[in-house]
Amino acid sequence: MEKPTRDRTRKAAHGRAAPAKPLRARSGSRRTAPARKEAPAVPGGAAAADDTVITALELEAAPLSPAMAAYFEKCREKLGFVPNVLKAYAFDMPKLEAFVAMYNDLMLAPSGLSKLEREMIAVAVSSHNRCYYCLVAHGAAVRQLSGDPVLGELMAMNYRAAKLTRRQRAMLDFAVKLTAEPWQVEEADRERLRKAKCSDRDIWDIAAVAGFFNMTNRVASATDMRPNRVYHGQARTPATERS
Amino acid sequence: MEKPTRDRTRKAAHGRAAPAKPLRARSGSRRTAPARKEAPAVPGGAAAADDTVITALELEAAPLSPAMAAYFEKCREKLGFVPNVLKAYAFDMPKLEAFVAMYNDLMLAPSGLSKLEREMIAVAVSSHNRCYYCLVAHGAAVRQLSGDPVLGELMAMNYRAAKLTRRQRAMLDFAVKLTAEPWQVEEADRERLRKAKCSDRDIWDIAAVAGFFNMTNRVASATDMRPNRVYHGQARTPATERS
Amino acid sequence: MEKPTRDRTRKAAHGRAAPAKPLRARSGSRRTAPARKEAPAVPGGAAAADDTVITALELEAAPLSPAMAAYFEKCREKLGFVPNVLKAYAFDMPKLEAFVAMYNDLMLAPSGLSKLEREMIAVAVSSHNRCYYCLVAHGAAVRQLSGDPVLGELMAMNYRAAKLTRRQRAMLDFAVKLTAEPWQVEEADRERLRKAKCSDRDIWDIAAVAGFFNMTNRVASATDMRPNRVYHGQARTPATERS
Amino acid sequence: MEKPTRDRTRKAAHGRAAPAKPLRARSGSRRTAPARKEAPAVPGGAAAADDTVITALELEAAPLSPAMAAYFEKCREKLGFVPNVLKAYAFDMPKLEAFVAMYNDLMLAPSGLSKLEREMIAVAVSSHNRCYYCLVAHGAAVRQLSGDPVLGELMAMNYRAAKLTRRQRAMLDFAVKLTAEPWQVEEADRERLRKAKCSDRDIWDIAAVAGFFNMTNRVASATDMRPNRVYHGQARTPATERS
Amino acid sequence: MEKPTRDRTRKAAHGRAAPAKPLRARSGSRRTAPARKEAPAVPGGAAAADDTVITALELEAAPLSPAMAAYFEKCREKLGFVPNVLKAYAFDMPKLEAFVAMYNDLMLAPSGLSKLEREMIAVAVSSHNRCYYCLVAHGAAVRQLSGDPVLGELMAMNYRAAKLTRRQRAMLDFAVKLTAEPWQVEEADRERLRKAKCSDRDIWDIAAVAGFFNMTNRVASATDMRPNRVYHGQARTPATERS
Amino acid sequence: MEKPTRDRTRKAAHGRAAPAKPLRARSGSRRTAPARKEAPAVPGGAAAADDTVITALELEAAPLSPAMAAYFEKCREKLGFVPNVLKAYAFDMPKLEAFVAMYNDLMLAPSGLSKLEREMIAVAVSSHNRCYYCLVAHGAAVRQLSGDPVLGELMAMNYRAAKLTRRQRAMLDFAVKLTAEPWQVEEADRERLRKAKCSDRDIWDIAAVAGFFNMTNRVASATDMRPNRVYHGQARTPATERS
Repeated sequence: MEKPTRDRTRKAAHGRAAPAKPLRARSGSRRTAPARKEAPAVPGGAAAADDTVITALELEAAPLSPAMAAYFEKCREKLGFVPNVLKAYAFDMPKLEAFVAMYNDLMLAPSGLSKLEREMIAVAVSSHNRCYYCLVAHGAAVRQLSGDPVLGELMAMNYRAAKLTRRQRAMLDFAVKLTAEPWQVEEADRERLRKAKCSDRDIWDIAAVAGFFNMTNRVASATDMRPNRVYHGQARTPATERS
Repeated sequence: MEKPTRDRTRKAAHGRAAPAKPLRARSGSRRTAPARKEAPAVPGGAAAADDTVITALELEAAPLSPAMAAYFEKCREKLGFVPNVLKAYAFDMPKLEAFVAMYNDLMLAPSGLSKLEREMIAVAVSSHNRCYYCLVAHGAAVRQLSGDPVLGELMAMNYRAAKLTRRQRAMLDFAVKLTAEPWQVEEADRERLRKAKCSDRDIWDIAAVAGFFNMTNRVASATDMRPNRVYHGQARTPATERS
Repeated sequence: MEKPTRDRTRKAAHGRAAPAKPLRARSGSRRTAPARKEAPAVPGGAAAADDTVITALELEAAPLSPAMAAYFEKCREKLGFVPNVLKAYAFDMPKLEAFVAMYNDLMLAPSGLSKLEREMIAVAVSSHNRCYYCLVAHGAAVRQLSGDPVLGELMAMNYRAAKLTRRQRAMLDFAVKLTAEPWQVEEADRERLRKAKCSDRDIWDIAAVAGFFNMTNRVASATDMRPNRVYHGQARTPATERS
Repeated sequence: MEKPTRDRTRKAAHGRAAPAKPLRARSGSRRTAPARKEAPAVPGGAAAADDTVITALELEAAPLSPAMAAYFEKCREKLGFVPNVLKAYAFDMPKLEAFVAMYNDLMLAPSGLSKLEREMIAVAVSSHNRCYYCLVAHGAAVRQLSGDPVLGELMAMNYRAAKLTRRQRAMLDFAVKLTAEPWQVEEADRERLRKAKCSDRDIWDIAAVAGFFNMTNRVASATDMRPNRVYHGQARTPATERS
Repeated sequence: MEKPTRDRTRKAAHGRAAPAKPLRARSGSRRTAPARKEAPAVPGGAAAADDTVITALELEAAPLSPAMAAYFEKCREKLGFVPNVLKAYAFDMPKLEAFVAMYNDLMLAPSGLSKLEREMIAVAVSSHNRCYYCLVAHGAAVRQLSGDPVLGELMAMNYRAAKLTRRQRAMLDFAVKLTAEPWQVEEADRERLRKAKCSDRDIWDIAAVAGFFNMTNRVASATDMRPNRVYHGQARTPATERS
Repeated sequence: MEKPTRDRTRKAAHGRAAPAKPLRARSGSRRTAPARKEAPAVPGGAAAADDTVITALELEAAPLSPAMAAYFEKCREKLGFVPNVLKAYAFDMPKLEAFVAMYNDLMLAPSGLSKLEREMIAVAVSSHNRCYYCLVAHGAAVRQLSGDPVLGELMAMNYRAAKLTRRQRAMLDFAVKLTAEPWQVEEADRERLRKAKCSDRDIWDIAAVAGFFNMTNRVASATDMRPNRVYHGQARTPATERS
């Protein structure tokens, strides 16, 4: 079973020098997580070593409940790996199950917003919050769902530079205003969405997705959560050019 | 069964004049919600009329699932009313159930943070985001759990003015920085919590509660969610003076 | 005669632990202020002990001038207590008298703005500046003048969530913009007020009240000024429900 | 007697084109103020025409009270002109008298801060708030009191670029933080002043001056108050080079 | 010769719907630029159609000066294409030549900063400014120079999440502070660089590169400059995995 | 030949006390620059001593190239002095030459913007960035080119308070928005300029000048660059009053 561990050697990954302050000593029993099982399914090579370090917190993985064991297995089958955010929550089954239930309902259940549109909101919100984990993981999702590698970059860098439908632009404007200054959101903002052909239920869904990523961006930033390296190379070729 | 409806007459509640623009006509089938059942349990009088208007969105209440019907009943027994946020989510049972599961785990499950401390984080985050719903509902919770009506005001107005333990202050500083500029949260911030006697698990819990209210603040602001009026008068007398 | 003193024991009022750093020693002549005289007039009990600590500065109270002695006496008669801000200024009679003269002119003299509207501006400005003293003291004034305990909370939490007349909303928008980014206030902002039926004299009064609380918010924050505890419980019951 | 009037021709003073929108018609009784009396005392020529337009508000000047008439006369004798801010307040004697009393106490009464230091705080605060009136009028005061025309520019442009004593720097840092984010001012900030040799009374005075200019900056911005043109040329030569 | 043109059909590239307002008619003489010459050298296919639309401004390309013609030819040889920023400046030879001279000196001339470090500064600054053009073009440069596709993403998303040497971190902190609030940069900031082993000349170079991208970010944003599509796919595979 | 040096005695120029921390020792070879040659041409006296200290960085002046020697000579003839920014860049001829080429093209070459308008943009941008060097040097340029000493102050203090043509106001609004939040600049902003009679080439020029000062403001702030003292007294008398 996966165990989120924390190999402090990661700290020097991109640097020439050691960190300025020695990290406080901890018990030596941590080993790098056996990420091997996921690796074979990842096109392009083994999971990188630092996929075994998921957060800056030392939290013992709990035994997976049967439902979560099945869910992790399904991730491995469909994605080739278990997203690190799930491993990060796996120290406590009720927390993991609540997160998975809310995530799957928001991002996958029927909605007036397409799955791509929900991922676009996720990335535009995460860009405002400069959340490394969510930008990497959901940027890849935008590239995959759209078949357009440029669209993923636009959402991550500045959604205002993208050429979008009026409805999509209104969605993202609402989601980002709600992220930046929620206290300023008023009836006029909702009316703007309604004029762009959003139903009241669509407004709820935009708010709920934007709200959810305002939560996960903060959990990820607070814990220095690291995305699986495999995301970086995913869907970098336009769908039209893939063979 | 309660049905969240939207009585546009609310718009003139605190005003002398009519709203500037007429609201667009909608189907006439809306009725004011029969809030009578809650009323008797509320000390001081019937639930105010505008407790029947919960959000600015028109969403039909769905039939409550058995689990949620039982949960609403439990709210009525213990609180004397069903918090409006639950009614707002009640247009869709999977959403309501996911929300309730996550909320109860975060705020009520065992944790290194007391229930009061979790509510203090909720209010300090909501104060940064100037979220009317959450300030009213969770401000009341701080007053009740602490028996100190002044502490609730301090959390809602400026937590920096409160006299807190060093550990509580560190928690709130972390939660509010995570709210205001999550991209700036780094190892030094986590170390500050560890030095204030927070375990890594406590850090997760602080982040998770702060993250959760960053979500709900935005859902509430996006939908103009209204708190039950009964909160306003709750626990305004110091516990030491209550007979 | 009251003497503003500074009982450092206040520091531990809401905390479990002692402050991190010992406060530097000071001369021992400070005594807790004899707040007894106010107490009887306060409904609900004696003035709390920490009403005797008014600011974080050690300033010796000066003898009250005859005019100020009469004014303090009038406060006790009408309010049941002397507002702490007056005691804070009482180390210097010219400063106290100038403050009282300006305050009374602005908040009580004839104006196109009602007294309630002036208090609403005071609270909305203080909310932007997150000033604990002014939110507590003037939040109570809004509750009392309006007979509406909810309106006080709305002004303190987020005035944009309140249902107001167009004129009142325009006043508060102007006052808060003037608070947040005074350099952006221009003719278009004044025209918006004029269109909402404000005269040029009303514009002056809105600006003067907003400006005044931008001053007092800062004096209060700079000195950690503490409001009288009695404010917290005032006017928490709707006027319509009072017997 | 001076009468603050409002000559709309000012609007085109620095422009080639007429304003975009015609200004609404008003009663024809406005006359340009007879600024002649001040003129002779102004070195370098007559008061510029637009000194007769003081604010964007139409407020009838009230008859000066005897005290205020004497004060205006004293201004003319000592300065050669009446500062426009006084004329702006002159529509109402109680307001003018309260303003003058507070201003004179703060800026001229005995204090641990020199008059120059109080003016430096005034300008640094006004620079943060980008208040044209106060930067012009008090920038001139810094140049005059210091005999150093460069110091005035430094305060108006970026006080951080000035070479100051540690105590002066601490004063301005406190005053500007109090201006920018008063909710963040805490005991540590006061301690920093105490370590820079400020007494508690000095802290009050710094706060009171900073607070006062946070008020007047806003009244000036709200009313588009215009400084007397004579300020611009004052004290532009270093004191050491004057003959 | 290349001519920067502006094919308005781009506007619908990522959208389902037409833009809300029709664009004003313009002279019909624009032709799509003959991008064919670059195309063969681009791995993975012809230059995308929208590489022919470079900015939102209609500026006629000027004849290339001999020096610039040679420089463009060199770009085609070495990169396989002419970066769009050069085409954007090509309406005026003195502007193009000044830009090229400054750019090449800053990014390629000898310096205590490696070329990679200068590109890292470029991307971190562009991330603060959310500049789509510079993030795409210089993000690719970071990936290529480092052989590390993840490092490019980290710089574009949140440099604080990267594991860097203390010196590199100090460089980026200085560059981003200088970008966000240049008025706050003082001797203490320079001392921090010196302590991280930066010479005074290094400080100049950090400031000059950060300054330059603060310029180009704004020219790109002001003109809606579009990066060559070929950048998106460049160097997405770690150098260690390339055959 | 001028040599930018760094006389640390400057540090006490405006202060009573010595700097808090001793500056680290450096090699003793620095001499004060022989500023005498410029001095005679400066009306009002010799160049002040602290014109010899130009930045906080120790960079050895390089021998001037023939082109730059001629350019410096031309500055002395026409201005009476060499602007300090040029001396600051003179440690490296390619950097100096690239800076001079770009500066002269932007500010002096033919354009739809007058030289005064370009200087107004320079000062409004520098005011947003609170750049002491650029405000002093280009504020003087606005005064000289306009013959209006007040206009220079308005640009430096708050351009919104100036009475400008609609076209000039649109230019400055665009330049300052591009400075403050370049990521928000979109087609609607360009359309606003076009409606105010700006051609697409004018838009480029506004963006290029605004961009350039966003660069130089940061180089100046990063290095604590000091303007020549002679600027302060220049053009303080209205052109109409000069004999």
